[in-house]
Amino acid sequence: MPLVRFDLIEGRDEKDLRELLDASHRAVVNAFGVPERDRYQIVNQHSVNELIIEDTGLGFDRSRNMVIVSVTSTQRSDKQKKNFYKLLAQELGESCGIEPNDIMVSIVTNGAGDWSFGFGEAQFLTGKL
Amino acid sequence: MPLVRFDLIEGRDEKDLRELLDASHRAVVNAFGVPERDRYQIVNQHSVNELIIEDTGLGFDRSRNMVIVSVTSTQRSDKQKKNFYKLLAQELGESCGIEPNDIMVSIVTNGAGDWSFGFGEAQFLTGKL
Amino acid sequence: MPLVRFDLIEGRDEKDLRELLDASHRAVVNAFGVPERDRYQIVNQHSVNELIIEDTGLGFDRSRNMVIVSVTSTQRSDKQKKNFYKLLAQELGESCGIEPNDIMVSIVTNGAGDWSFGFGEAQFLTGKL
Repeated sequence: MPLVRFDLIEGRDEKDLRELLDASHRAVVNAFGVPERDRYQIVNQHSVNELIIEDTGLGFDRSRNMVIVSVTSTQRSDKQKKNFYKLLAQELGESCGIEPNDIMVSIVTNGAGDWSFGFGEAQFLTGKL
Repeated sequence: MPLVRFDLIEGRDEKDLRELLDASHRAVVNAFGVPERDRYQIVNQHSVNELIIEDTGLGFDRSRNMVIVSVTSTQRSDKQKKNFYKLLAQELGESCGIEPNDIMVSIVTNGAGDWSFGFGEAQFLTGKL
Repeated sequence: MPLVRFDLIEGRDEKDLRELLDASHRAVVNAFGVPERDRYQIVNQHSVNELIIEDTGLGFDRSRNMVIVSVTSTQRSDKQKKNFYKLLAQELGESCGIEPNDIMVSIVTNGAGDWSFGFGEAQFLTGKL
């Protein structure tokens, strides 16, 4: 159920984009322990001047490969989140050649009643999930 | 005040898009009991490969008509949320022919101080709303 | 660290867009007291029919200049938020000629563990930030 929004600079072809999404989803599944089909991914592709992503003074730059990942999820522990950040960087590095300085993640938490996956129902409240 | 973001696959014409937004807004107004002009809707239209929306194993598919609705709102009860999901599926079905398997909703909650509707003011804190 | 998403109607040139982002960032830095390089801005540009932004009955209209600002941040006080709304309206007015009726802001709060700025690390948890 995490809903994951990707903001990227335009220019990747269809295959590269799919690999990026597949790799990211492996990190979600492994870090959060969700089912394989718990996959909800949205991509926004931007021109270069639509993304200004700096570093809070940490001392690194971003390239045009940068990936900003915005996750909406029910509660996850800090341990799960840290594992997600690590796995995501590994997966995007190994599968897509994205450098670790180019990956930024932000998570927002909501509750069981905040999700409807279809059919006008709140599946976490009805017991279907 | 709910701020409602719609992620869709591109291809609807202007009239169909407007009907989708009108229908969705009726569900917001009726489920949350907000004023008619409490309407804040943003649409992101995507190519097919920018949306991967599955089903957490619930056993249904999505079509190119799918609508992903991301709501930011102050606190709503589970009863209101469940009513919203139901009304939204009804409205989008009746007015736009969108099937119930194509509608996904996620809600994120914030507080009274988290909104400024204009003029550099926090209208929920100043008493104007 | 606030991650700031801007939804705008398309049509600004590169220089105007940059001024809008610079002006907004000055408001973030001054209102929230964050470092200059704590800058994370994403722009989504829309056709006119993709944004329906009304006024909850407050009694004003929006023009095609409207700016919808969606902020994700760790906890800020109401005082800081009110100051942000005020400074943002000032900055966008003075630097970009955007009228105060055209500026809407919504804030969502998350926690220290909800951010990774790069390298697969949660910098607020590791002590690097």
